[in-house]
Amino acid sequence: MRKIMVMNLGSTSFKFKLFYMDAEETCIASGGVENIGSAGSCAVSVRGKKVREACACQDHPGALARCMDLLEDNGLPVALESLDALGYKAVHGGRISGAQVVDDSLIREMERMNGLAPAHNPVYLSMMRSMREKYPGLLQIACFETAFHATIPLFRAVYGVPYEWAERYGVRRYGFHGSSHSYIAWKMAREAPWAKRVISVHLGGSCSICAILEGKSVASSMGATPQSGVFHNNRVGDLDVFCLPLLAERLGGYDQAFRALSKESGLLGLSGVSNDMRAVEQAAKDGNERAALAADAFLDSVVGYIGMYTAYLGGADAICFTGGIGANDADFRKRAAERLAFLGARVDDGLNAAGNGRISAEDSGVSLWAFETNEELMVARGCMTILEK
Amino acid sequence: MRKIMVMNLGSTSFKFKLFYMDAEETCIASGGVENIGSAGSCAVSVRGKKVREACACQDHPGALARCMDLLEDNGLPVALESLDALGYKAVHGGRISGAQVVDDSLIREMERMNGLAPAHNPVYLSMMRSMREKYPGLLQIACFETAFHATIPLFRAVYGVPYEWAERYGVRRYGFHGSSHSYIAWKMAREAPWAKRVISVHLGGSCSICAILEGKSVASSMGATPQSGVFHNNRVGDLDVFCLPLLAERLGGYDQAFRALSKESGLLGLSGVSNDMRAVEQAAKDGNERAALAADAFLDSVVGYIGMYTAYLGGADAICFTGGIGANDADFRKRAAERLAFLGARVDDGLNAAGNGRISAEDSGVSLWAFETNEELMVARGCMTILEK
Repeated sequence: MRKIMVMNLGSTSFKFKLFYMDAEETCIASGGVENIGSAGSCAVSVRGKKVREACACQDHPGALARCMDLLEDNGLPVALESLDALGYKAVHGGRISGAQVVDDSLIREMERMNGLAPAHNPVYLSMMRSMREKYPGLLQIACFETAFHATIPLFRAVYGVPYEWAERYGVRRYGFHGSSHSYIAWKMAREAPWAKRVISVHLGGSCSICAILEGKSVASSMGATPQSGVFHNNRVGDLDVFCLPLLAERLGGYDQAFRALSKESGLLGLSGVSNDMRAVEQAAKDGNERAALAADAFLDSVVGYIGMYTAYLGGADAICFTGGIGANDADFRKRAAERLAFLGARVDDGLNAAGNGRISAEDSGVSLWAFETNEELMVARGCMTILEK
Repeated sequence: MRKIMVMNLGSTSFKFKLFYMDAEETCIASGGVENIGSAGSCAVSVRGKKVREACACQDHPGALARCMDLLEDNGLPVALESLDALGYKAVHGGRISGAQVVDDSLIREMERMNGLAPAHNPVYLSMMRSMREKYPGLLQIACFETAFHATIPLFRAVYGVPYEWAERYGVRRYGFHGSSHSYIAWKMAREAPWAKRVISVHLGGSCSICAILEGKSVASSMGATPQSGVFHNNRVGDLDVFCLPLLAERLGGYDQAFRALSKESGLLGLSGVSNDMRAVEQAAKDGNERAALAADAFLDSVVGYIGMYTAYLGGADAICFTGGIGANDADFRKRAAERLAFLGARVDDGLNAAGNGRISAEDSGVSLWAFETNEELMVARGCMTILEK
């Protein structure tokens, strides 16, 4: 039985799951740290028991160490050097995708993509380097978020740019959130095997929508980078590129413009309230007009992409919501379904409130679902493909 | 009865229509010049009689003069100073929209928007200045392409950027091709008054798709600038903005990147063959793989936007194709309809080959249409609103 630790890194967050990859693919422990770099909290769950403590971790390696201490305090000492692999839900590998051993050439290619994934790649690279130094014998494996989208047809992956740019510079749609969307594809194949045309709607801090045809991705709202598509907690989503010269002029340069577009935009920028949908929806209920505008714009763009992907798929059999918002915000799902009435969509209020399974009424024209995603499990499975070679 | 000359300017093309705005809104003459700046041709049509000559016009005012000479040679001398108005199908006026008298402040605002419409605004400004100088007494009126889209709801017009950027810098979706889409809205209201939810698909050198609800625009695939949305003959369409730093680095700077995105991209860049869909489709038939890729990508993005706008409209009653490709390429329309079979779309092959009216079969689930657009007529009507004040 293989032991695999999977890490999921955000700019100020650290999450892990420890898997014993037996027949049940047991997740023996999980947890993470919020607010790295300032006063935060560390939480772990060991064999179902949950513990939370205040902490102040300076960086992601510090957050990992803090979690390991908390596991040990709660009866599960983990020697990292004894793991079969450390798996990363890595984001942008450019030409490199799938499950890959972390080595010098992989690190170089990820560095080359830093500009395309400024919120993601640097923090992964920092962690990989730290782990190589501390545990030189530990096998590190990166499972890229782009892998599931390798099946998007080329005519949908290209932009309207000189074709050489795709080949030479990598300017094409990659798609991201592959671990989550591939989990939903796997889950839906078990729960609703008759659903050949599935739209996976991952809405959380990052948001993306994926069209899945017979288990394979055929479209992703995230394109060349994870900043595009539906807008995100603080990242821009789709924007007309010809706004950039004007923004650079007004904001003092292109660097400033891209910084604002990757840190001060999305739900946060539009609402002026928060990068958290719950806070934005509450402010909207309390009468904040910009918050209401942001919530309406977000819902509208999700509905628009569902329509686009219905066309790409030639109709939709099932729509599945996941991610922090998608899996937990029943009110959002209901409003989305109301907008999709032209597809015959209709939620069952009881099922929708419960989530975690089918949420549509018996007579719904399209089957609606909500699940927690499990990206780390898909990364652990990716690691297994390397370990079993 | 008012006499109005309407001008439609491209970077190397000049088109005009001369209207006698009687009850029939008679177009007494029309014509234009191709390949301004090099060896081109000038063609006019006077009361139905067509004449074409080779010419070499240096600039747009020269092209106008050449057309006026050709009209006179064919029995219709036009004294420009005797016109009631010279109307422009103007593109980007930023905060200024609708039908507006050309004055210093309008010219300043259009200049401010040059960066957002580099293929369009400068050539209009040059013509307006030249006409003011030569005919100081002639009333010039600009009818902006954004006007029809003023009814797009704010939640759909905003991008996921700080809301202040919309207010201060004008970073929002404006929508363009308003003259064409408003003509289609007017035409469809006459031909199919029962169709409350119409998708207008204008595909030509520039391409845009518009969702029309009860005669009013509620979405446009062109956003802040006419470079966005479905890709165009040589302009990029939608592109992930975070590709720009990489492109600037590889192409020698941001200016070079934006130049390539506005002149060497779209159908031309992707196909490597031509900026003309007919040539690209022919090359695809002859086995050119990049041409086939470009044609497939173009069709796919049109189908995707139709799906998105079907969702925005909560279903579609009618889809109307117009523009050089949309009104004339029956094969393209048929392939689009086949992809829209999930809406029940089905063309009637005979009607589709004929174009100019309904092209769908009796049992089609959505009504399909094709019409030549008449942007100049909508500009002439815009001028009339000023003249009648």
